Amino acid sequence: MADSRFVYHFNERHVDGHGGMKDVLGGKGAGLAEMCRAGLPVPPGFTISTEACVLFHHNPPTFPTIIWPEVLAALRELEQVSGKKFGGLPNPLLVSVRSGAKFSMPGMMDTVLDIGLNDRTARELAEETGNPTFVYDSYRRLLQMFGDVVLGISDDKFERLLAVSMRGKRVRSEIELGGEELARACEEFKKIIEGESKVFPQDPKEQLRMAIEAVFRSWNNPRAIAYRRFNDIPENLGTAVNIQVMVFGNKGENSGSGVGFTRDPATGQPGLYGEFLPRAQGEEVVAGTRTPLGLEELERAFPAIYQQLTDIGIKLEKHYREMQDFEFTIENGKLYMLQTRDGKRTGLAAVRIGWDMYQEGLVSREEALIRVEPEQLEQLLHPVFKDEGAEVLARGMPASPGAAVGRIVFSADEAAEIAQKGNPVILVRTETVPDDIHGMEAAEGILTARGGMTSHAAVVARGMGKCCVVGCESLHVDEERKELRVAGKVFKQGDYISVDGADGRVMPGRVQRVETEAQVGLLSDFMGLLEGTSTLQVRANADTARDARKARDFGASGIGLCRTEHMFFAEDRLPVMQQMILAGDARERSLFLGQLKEFQKADFFSILEAMDGLPVTVRLLDPPLHEFLPRREELVAEILRLRAGGVDPEQIARREKLLNRVGELQETNPMMGHRGCRLGITYPDVTRMQVQALFEAACELKKRGKSPFLEIMIPLVSLVEEFRDQAALVREAAQETFARYRFELPYLVGTMIEVPRAALVADDIAREAEFFSFGTNDLTQMTFGFSRDDAGKFIGAYQQRNLLRKDPFQTLDLPGVGQLMRIAVEKGKRARPELKIGICGEHGGDPASIQFCFDLNLDYVSCSPYRVPVARMAAAHAAVRAGKSVKLERVGV
Amino acid sequence: MADSRFVYHFNERHVDGHGGMKDVLGGKGAGLAEMCRAGLPVPPGFTISTEACVLFHHNPPTFPTIIWPEVLAALRELEQVSGKKFGGLPNPLLVSVRSGAKFSMPGMMDTVLDIGLNDRTARELAEETGNPTFVYDSYRRLLQMFGDVVLGISDDKFERLLAVSMRGKRVRSEIELGGEELARACEEFKKIIEGESKVFPQDPKEQLRMAIEAVFRSWNNPRAIAYRRFNDIPENLGTAVNIQVMVFGNKGENSGSGVGFTRDPATGQPGLYGEFLPRAQGEEVVAGTRTPLGLEELERAFPAIYQQLTDIGIKLEKHYREMQDFEFTIENGKLYMLQTRDGKRTGLAAVRIGWDMYQEGLVSREEALIRVEPEQLEQLLHPVFKDEGAEVLARGMPASPGAAVGRIVFSADEAAEIAQKGNPVILVRTETVPDDIHGMEAAEGILTARGGMTSHAAVVARGMGKCCVVGCESLHVDEERKELRVAGKVFKQGDYISVDGADGRVMPGRVQRVETEAQVGLLSDFMGLLEGTSTLQVRANADTARDARKARDFGASGIGLCRTEHMFFAEDRLPVMQQMILAGDARERSLFLGQLKEFQKADFFSILEAMDGLPVTVRLLDPPLHEFLPRREELVAEILRLRAGGVDPEQIARREKLLNRVGELQETNPMMGHRGCRLGITYPDVTRMQVQALFEAACELKKRGKSPFLEIMIPLVSLVEEFRDQAALVREAAQETFARYRFELPYLVGTMIEVPRAALVADDIAREAEFFSFGTNDLTQMTFGFSRDDAGKFIGAYQQRNLLRKDPFQTLDLPGVGQLMRIAVEKGKRARPELKIGICGEHGGDPASIQFCFDLNLDYVSCSPYRVPVARMAAAHAAVRAGKSVKLERVGV
Repeated sequence: MADSRFVYHFNERHVDGHGGMKDVLGGKGAGLAEMCRAGLPVPPGFTISTEACVLFHHNPPTFPTIIWPEVLAALRELEQVSGKKFGGLPNPLLVSVRSGAKFSMPGMMDTVLDIGLNDRTARELAEETGNPTFVYDSYRRLLQMFGDVVLGISDDKFERLLAVSMRGKRVRSEIELGGEELARACEEFKKIIEGESKVFPQDPKEQLRMAIEAVFRSWNNPRAIAYRRFNDIPENLGTAVNIQVMVFGNKGENSGSGVGFTRDPATGQPGLYGEFLPRAQGEEVVAGTRTPLGLEELERAFPAIYQQLTDIGIKLEKHYREMQDFEFTIENGKLYMLQTRDGKRTGLAAVRIGWDMYQEGLVSREEALIRVEPEQLEQLLHPVFKDEGAEVLARGMPASPGAAVGRIVFSADEAAEIAQKGNPVILVRTETVPDDIHGMEAAEGILTARGGMTSHAAVVARGMGKCCVVGCESLHVDEERKELRVAGKVFKQGDYISVDGADGRVMPGRVQRVETEAQVGLLSDFMGLLEGTSTLQVRANADTARDARKARDFGASGIGLCRTEHMFFAEDRLPVMQQMILAGDARERSLFLGQLKEFQKADFFSILEAMDGLPVTVRLLDPPLHEFLPRREELVAEILRLRAGGVDPEQIARREKLLNRVGELQETNPMMGHRGCRLGITYPDVTRMQVQALFEAACELKKRGKSPFLEIMIPLVSLVEEFRDQAALVREAAQETFARYRFELPYLVGTMIEVPRAALVADDIAREAEFFSFGTNDLTQMTFGFSRDDAGKFIGAYQQRNLLRKDPFQTLDLPGVGQLMRIAVEKGKRARPELKIGICGEHGGDPASIQFCFDLNLDYVSCSPYRVPVARMAAAHAAVRAGKSVKLERVGV
Repeated sequence: MADSRFVYHFNERHVDGHGGMKDVLGGKGAGLAEMCRAGLPVPPGFTISTEACVLFHHNPPTFPTIIWPEVLAALRELEQVSGKKFGGLPNPLLVSVRSGAKFSMPGMMDTVLDIGLNDRTARELAEETGNPTFVYDSYRRLLQMFGDVVLGISDDKFERLLAVSMRGKRVRSEIELGGEELARACEEFKKIIEGESKVFPQDPKEQLRMAIEAVFRSWNNPRAIAYRRFNDIPENLGTAVNIQVMVFGNKGENSGSGVGFTRDPATGQPGLYGEFLPRAQGEEVVAGTRTPLGLEELERAFPAIYQQLTDIGIKLEKHYREMQDFEFTIENGKLYMLQTRDGKRTGLAAVRIGWDMYQEGLVSREEALIRVEPEQLEQLLHPVFKDEGAEVLARGMPASPGAAVGRIVFSADEAAEIAQKGNPVILVRTETVPDDIHGMEAAEGILTARGGMTSHAAVVARGMGKCCVVGCESLHVDEERKELRVAGKVFKQGDYISVDGADGRVMPGRVQRVETEAQVGLLSDFMGLLEGTSTLQVRANADTARDARKARDFGASGIGLCRTEHMFFAEDRLPVMQQMILAGDARERSLFLGQLKEFQKADFFSILEAMDGLPVTVRLLDPPLHEFLPRREELVAEILRLRAGGVDPEQIARREKLLNRVGELQETNPMMGHRGCRLGITYPDVTRMQVQALFEAACELKKRGKSPFLEIMIPLVSLVEEFRDQAALVREAAQETFARYRFELPYLVGTMIEVPRAALVADDIAREAEFFSFGTNDLTQMTFGFSRDDAGKFIGAYQQRNLLRKDPFQTLDLPGVGQLMRIAVEKGKRARPELKIGICGEHGGDPASIQFCFDLNLDYVSCSPYRVPVARMAAAHAAVRAGKSVKLERVGV
């Protein structure tokens, strides 16, 4: 700091600081200075800079005497401004001493109020004001807080004494004890202090000095240290100390305190919103011991003050260009503003306020955008429950947001059947399997007893934008008996339950939901602001035309991942796929491949049609073949059943053949086994079939005047030779098709980067591949050596013991996975400067990960259709932060 | 090249080149020049430099006319030196034109012999010498080779014509046709050439020019290109062309040809060794149409020439300081040396020759070492079969070398039982499981029908240095009926078979083996030369005191990997381990942990004792717990059996409880599941038990005056937080133990680097860890995403299609895994310069990988005890190459 001063004034005549000086004045001090500058009625005071606190903490911690003359001078100025005298009579000046660091650390550090009172001033003030109750309650507070905070005496001792008094007098609040009893309590309090061999200084200046020192000291109390560590707040900042003239909302009938917002924090509706308590200090409003009144009561009781507050609200928003959350006190009919800060709000309110303020010309487009957290958009995309007080049966993991209400069903087939009759259903399963897809599609929501945030149910439901709660361990799902047992209750098929995908709650019956139509309109308006803000495009992961259309509605600029295999799980295709896998030789296989090709062609046709003019990245077959076959255990059980039932031996033989093939295909670690391009290399005819289907569909669309654009993606590449092999096949099959159609289409061939080695040799691969797409799900698995399906067994313990702060499957692990991505981007671009690079793992929908992708200068992120708005916001935020962060810094608080 | 000449002479008067000029003269040309320099009787000639070939291949390939005047001048010098005249009479000069590149490419490029003959010289020469058979056979050869090589006419056409002639005359060789018939053949050959519209030039200079051009051209024939690609030989080197006066071993009774070695290439025994054919050209000696005689016959027939050859052999070895493989021809009683090169040899001979030459003062220690390939030592470490012609029943994969003969047994228990009675046994299994260890130990050899080079049987057998053949798919092992069916035969328990672990052969009965005792002495002498040559130490992977002692005998400088879990698989420990895993709570678990601790303490005591004074790196428990429990299928079958048998229900309940736990522990991808330090973190008491056992054993040894040195290794770390957690536990348990013993021991705590992320954040980890050990088995799995257990399904196809040249589990993949290792070493050493770094994957025994470890400046490699000699040689080679490669380059050929 160039300036060598330690004290900064704020009063109506003289303001040294301003809102941009949080480094020096802390958040509170900067805010008080800024309010003064804005001409608001703020109780005058001064701030001791954070630097003083840093000085204090030089080893060993000692009060920095260098600041004391400045403090005394500031005190004198305060006496002049307020017309009161510190420690003097008839009008003693009382002050508060509060901490206030650069970053908010709510409740972590200390505060002492009513400094300046002592035996003499209390006595004379009580006489003078004729309000001994108020005066001795204040003195009592000072003794108690000073004892606790400054002298280190357990607060319990004071509280116990007060409790005894209140019981004796049969009253419920200290104030009801009355002046005489409170004066007695003050005497007792002083005895407690003496009993601890401590001294309460009667000299107000000594009180002040000790209180300042205590606040300095509180910067390093254990809970503050823990808080800073947890929130990544640097240790060496120190706290500022704010000394401010006390005002009293509890002085009498014409006094009171309140809190307010300049707009409704729940809905964003314009106009003041808040609460008010007459004859009360601020703490009582928030403590909840008395029920506060709405601000309309303030309007009725003190119309002039309400008008003044309304004007101040407008002034505050003009000044801060943000919705404000403020505290005020009325002392004998005079309004004081004690604090203002940006108000917290719901997602709905955030969007509404952002949009309104932009319309009002109060903020720029970038500001409107940056103030809505990407995740907050989720609240506008899905219905939410109204009643927060509903009975909760169990809690699982909130895998996919939404508020679902429906009848319980226990199988996918029944889900489809009952839903078709117009009944909303909730599919309740121990775990879901790929065969359940049609049931999941039919259901309002999905609830499972097992599995984590990345289980099959969770991943598929998020892909569908469908409400889903997983890993709800206290559920006992008896699929045979069609019963759900939980919390001592039994639910049968057809009973209603409600599932909250936003917080994991499972509730009995039909819980009411909030209307959402207005939200959709608002969201659409607001999303309009995003156009063209970011260089980082957002695509969607979509495997069906329905998802593709949904993604396009949400503003996706293409499909970043179309998984071809999901198409094979559909009821009419799975048997053909299975026959293909069971085929004895290439000729037999080609028969079934021919059938599958027609399915794929039709699927791709509708997807490419939906995305007309936009790029569609199709990943060739990825999962191991055994995923398309029944499980070994199920087959064994079925064969035993068939045998016992005396069924046609040929039917049994067929199942046995299937069992045999399942055995052959079994793998120890399927995640790292025979899948991805390894399949395409061992079964080139499967690759050829897929590529032919793709290009035939594209050519058909072209003939109809459309503009399909395919990006063919080779999965699980770890060697450039793998890519070369498959890319040659793709290009050959494309040329064959073009030759048949007598025209060519533009297309790209690229690769997933999802194996660590691929990232390491990205330069070699980029010489052959036209684009990269980071498959960060698998890349995270292999970089950590964490199998997603198994990591549940230890990741819990890791998070409990703080070995792992964020789930790397949700937010990109920058030191490890991020480093590999950086290597891949650098090497890839060096080898091919025009290389297109995207990401299609689930991280593509995570705002923190999107920020990293923006920093890496990727071309796009791809996420599930329902995450597209969130991802677009995150991309816009990254762009705004990168280009305009300095400008915003000055404006905000 | 500074020099602008293209032609280099070699004759007894004038030698331009020397042995160090392979770049310019190719290997053959450099060798011929060097032999001339050494005063050996070499037919005179000259070499056209590789640069001329490079010029030729400028696009489009054209004969570089610039070289022609130099060639003609050289030809004139050749005429002077030989006293013959090219194309002239009465003494026509005939020359050979041969290719010869820098790196040997045997048989890939072309040669034309007898250039200089034409109708006229042939006729007159036949008359003059009175040997028309010899002359027309030579002319026939010229026409045939020229037609094939220079004019591109299929050799078949010539051969078919010769075959008809020989059938007609009922003779078996061309020479037997006689002069008249051969002259007729020449006429017919010329007609063939004309029939193809080609011309055989009668002008010898034109013959020469065209032959030179053909040799240049042959540098780029498809098989030469393929060979270079496969052997990593650069494309732009070009070949030199050697023009040399022809000599004829087939001129008459006083002529002949032979090949020889200066020492026996099979045993290394000193003295000439070779073969000789009278009245023959060199090609006939190697062609095998006539049976050659031993050199002792040469001694009898031509004692003076034999003596001359003996002297030349000694001269050659003095000159080249290497055992030589040479070719010679006797033309009319005069000896000519045609070629000499370093002789190929068996491992035994390599060691013997190295040792002898060092003793003889012929080579330095470094030279003696560098000439023995590390892998060649394997041949001295294991017995080998004598009879290469034995009947082969089947071939499997050679998993661990050795020649084992014994009686067939089908179970580990029987192996142990029968072996104890003094019978050698071969354990024959479909696959081995951890329970089989005692049987594997008892057996001479192990043979399995399933599994690859990295299956359980293979890994364990290599660890034991025991002969093992795996994946022998044509075996039908019926363990129930105790029968082995293979190649239509049935073998019963007790029948003898022989198994060759070096090449995978399975043979019936008892095949004879070579004596090996002399080898052991020689090996031990030779290994003495290694002392102190390399900065890269060699440690062993050893889990038992026996292995540790073996490793020490082989010169290991410590244990780089002691796997603690193998100890738990022993018969008396497995049940305790299982009870520990089944324990309901920490208290119950602690009971069994207590028992396990005593086992471990005893094990570690004996291992540390065996390695007294040397470091022992102990890896904490690594495999997933389910590996210690029976397999699910086996348990289900057992329970069904027990139920059917009406066994005590309590026994059944115990198995069911076990089955339940097995189910709980089941994992989708166990390789990336709950194992390694993840176990130690969720079960800290297991870590504590192991560390206590370790330090108690060490303290007990210390009390007995020994110097144990422990390095505790945390497995599967991917987060520094994991390491911090476990290292704290280790240090705490160590301190507790020291406190009890009232003294401290030095020790280190370090980590495996086997997860890609650990390599990427190696700087963070190195701030906490005192050593790194690369676990390249797992690191390779995760870097490639190849599950070792499953990769067999596609790695075969990969190698077939040349997508993967080397198995990355055998030789380190430098671009991927090597890159990660380099990152880890650089980051690790930056954070902690004194960081000790080793490698303990199977690559630690692979010479190419060891070279890389040396280049990375690692402190040690660790491999199975039986690989220690090989690894020490490889480490010595790396050091010699790094420090002295220039000096050696000049000396060798």
